Amino acid sequence: VGVTTRSGTSPESRLRELGIELPRAPLPLGDYVPGKVAGSLLFVSGAYPTCPDERGAGDVLRYRGQLGGDLTAEQGQAAARLVAINLLAMARAIVHDLDRVRSVIRLTGYVNAAPGFTDAPAVLDGASRLLVEVFGPDSGSHCRMALYQPGLPDDAPLTAELLLDLHRTDKR
Amino acid sequence: VGVTTRSGTSPESRLRELGIELPRAPLPLGDYVPGKVAGSLLFVSGAYPTCPDERGAGDVLRYRGQLGGDLTAEQGQAAARLVAINLLAMARAIVHDLDRVRSVIRLTGYVNAAPGFTDAPAVLDGASRLLVEVFGPDSGSHCRMALYQPGLPDDAPLTAELLLDLHRTDKR
Amino acid sequence: VGVTTRSGTSPESRLRELGIELPRAPLPLGDYVPGKVAGSLLFVSGAYPTCPDERGAGDVLRYRGQLGGDLTAEQGQAAARLVAINLLAMARAIVHDLDRVRSVIRLTGYVNAAPGFTDAPAVLDGASRLLVEVFGPDSGSHCRMALYQPGLPDDAPLTAELLLDLHRTDKR
Repeated sequence: VGVTTRSGTSPESRLRELGIELPRAPLPLGDYVPGKVAGSLLFVSGAYPTCPDERGAGDVLRYRGQLGGDLTAEQGQAAARLVAINLLAMARAIVHDLDRVRSVIRLTGYVNAAPGFTDAPAVLDGASRLLVEVFGPDSGSHCRMALYQPGLPDDAPLTAELLLDLHRTDKR
Repeated sequence: VGVTTRSGTSPESRLRELGIELPRAPLPLGDYVPGKVAGSLLFVSGAYPTCPDERGAGDVLRYRGQLGGDLTAEQGQAAARLVAINLLAMARAIVHDLDRVRSVIRLTGYVNAAPGFTDAPAVLDGASRLLVEVFGPDSGSHCRMALYQPGLPDDAPLTAELLLDLHRTDKR
Repeated sequence: VGVTTRSGTSPESRLRELGIELPRAPLPLGDYVPGKVAGSLLFVSGAYPTCPDERGAGDVLRYRGQLGGDLTAEQGQAAARLVAINLLAMARAIVHDLDRVRSVIRLTGYVNAAPGFTDAPAVLDGASRLLVEVFGPDSGSHCRMALYQPGLPDDAPLTAELLLDLHRTDKR
């Protein structure tokens, strides 16, 4: 398809420029799929800050702990950036080529927060900035909802889901 | 419309084969509607594991209690299956015929969890499996987000919302 | 565009009739935008019950405290109404004219709840009623998800996000 952003680079080439090699998509944790397309919308399932387990078949958390307790906001941002990378890996697993993405629409993130921690927006900025780096300031900007969870599986620091808009290249 | 899944049966006939008679849709708990259509997308409001109250005009919870405390994961899955049935009843109340559904897109579920319970994915599988049984492995597969709530009305074990994609039979 | 609701008035003129002057849109709390359009869908980011700070450049919370503790359900409804007004201000910042809105699709609200408070639906009705007043009983009715948060930034009583469907006036 070969869409170009303002800076003249496509999402796939921006990933290469940024030195980001997308991992294989995280494995679903149950009876669902990494993403589903409706019209031009690509809905991506929830992701965690995991990496593929090199010694096994699953995924392992790269960051653990609550914000406002175990982790600093800076560590939370790094975890959020990894969540965004995993969401893009899941999106690519569905559409095979991120140059098919026209625009990032919506990011919803849920931060595992100790009582009193209320700076989920700062944590999620780690994910939002990665999306803007990859898709550019226009296509990459998105609307967002920042929420809190009193706990998450394996004490993961956050989870997030993503909505993308695709170029209308294929008829349905 | 008469769409057929791979196994040669439509969602409505699959419901009959499975012996599932959809109840009337749960009544809204406030000033909203069970679902709303935008283009080919049908957004369905949140549902609980309720049944119509045979002695009155409202709905009654069929399952009560927190996961990780009062209820086992197996009971949670049964509750989640009932939530999926209610979501389909709400969808049918809007479009009158589930054979108009082209694909299940997204399920978001929120589990009422005791501190330390983090297996919402296993609970929500009870809903996801029902959707795949009714719509088949391709149309029924969906993306998912599994989240936690420290409490829910009347100690309901979970709530979930659904997004469906409709066949494009009507112009707008 | 000049769409009319059943009562013969457009959303913008209904706002005037109701004596509601939309404030400037609340400022984003991080690296995201107030809303984003995909096809005919307008996704609006999370809003709080804030007003522009007359003494500064930011926004200030007009309501503070938990439901079921500090605030009555009636105060919560007033806060929810203000959240809806802010969501419309954000929507207008994106599409410039609320008469471009064809229909309200989905409202998701998260109530800051003291342990045991489970009447988020009553609180969110404050927002839902405002939307129906502005867009009329057909276009304004929407599907809804009512959820709970154990805390929110600056002890805000709730936050909510909105999905609108636009008239298909512009090609993409």
